[in-house]
Amino acid sequence: ECHSCKRVKEKKDLIFESNKFSVFLADDQTYLGRCFIDAERHVQSLSELSKDEWIDFGELVKKYETALKKSFAPELFNWSSSMNNTFNESIPDPHVHFHFRPRYSKIINFAGIEFKDPNFGHHYERSVDKKVSEEVKKKIIEKIKKNL
Amino acid sequence: ECHSCKRVKEKKDLIFESNKFSVFLADDQTYLGRCFIDAERHVQSLSELSKDEWIDFGELVKKYETALKKSFAPELFNWSSSMNNTFNESIPDPHVHFHFRPRYSKIINFAGIEFKDPNFGHHYERSVDKKVSEEVKKKIIEKIKKNL
Repeated sequence: ECHSCKRVKEKKDLIFESNKFSVFLADDQTYLGRCFIDAERHVQSLSELSKDEWIDFGELVKKYETALKKSFAPELFNWSSSMNNTFNESIPDPHVHFHFRPRYSKIINFAGIEFKDPNFGHHYERSVDKKVSEEVKKKIIEKIKKNL
Repeated sequence: ECHSCKRVKEKKDLIFESNKFSVFLADDQTYLGRCFIDAERHVQSLSELSKDEWIDFGELVKKYETALKKSFAPELFNWSSSMNNTFNESIPDPHVHFHFRPRYSKIINFAGIEFKDPNFGHHYERSVDKKVSEEVKKKIIEKIKKNL
C-alpha cells in the first residue's frame, strides 16, 4: 500500500487539511515543526498537479509558515519534494508529497525539551534523528493548531 | 547585490523564462539538467508568492519536467527551496528560488561526457561537484531548449 495514501486515510499526527493536501507532523523533530505534506489524491509527479492544486498548495504554504512563526518563531523554512525512495521498489509508484523543515537561529524550549537547530544557515542535516514521544508530538500539534 | 536579482538581470545560462520565474542551468551538472529557478521579482519567502505566481510556477514545473524527460529521460525530479545561505549574512535578504535535480537510473552520454547519477533512489548528494565547461553547458541548454 502507498505510504502517503495510508497516512492520508489514517490521519495519524494530522495537523490540518487543505482542500487538496494533508499536513502531518514528522516523528523526527530535529527541526521543530517538521512535517510532511501529502497530496490528498494519489498523483505521481508535480507535473500532474492541477492548477487548483497549485493554488491550494500556495495557500497552504502561507497558512503553515505563518502558524509556525507564531508558534516557535523560526527564521526561515526549507521545502523539498523528492520521491526518491519509491524508486528502490521493483515497480515505483510515487505519491506527491513535500518535506517542510523550519530553521532556527535560537534554541527553543518546549514541552520540557530543548530544540536546537544543528546547522542553521546551512543545508538541513539528515544524519540527525530527534524522535520525540507521542505525548510531545501531541503538544507540538496542539500548539501549531492554535495558531492556524 | 542579491545573487538571484543579478542572475535574472544578466541572463547568463538562461534556459527559459516564464511570466514570473527564470530557469538557469547550474554549473554543477552531477545531476544532468540541474538548474535554478529564480522568482523574477525580489520576493523573500514562499508565503509571499501570489496566486498568479503559484499558477505560473505549476506550469513551469510541467514544462521543464517534460522537456527534461524528452532530452535525457530521467526517472524523476527532486525539487527544493531553502534560502539557507543568506542567513549567514548580518542582514539576511532572501530571494525565492528553487533547486531542480533530475535523477537517473541509467548512465547518460552527452557531449562526450558520461553523466552518472551517484546515488539514484536516495537523497541528492551535495559533496559531489561535477563542473562542466561553458561549451558543454551551452550544448545542454540547446538540447533542453529544443524540447521546450
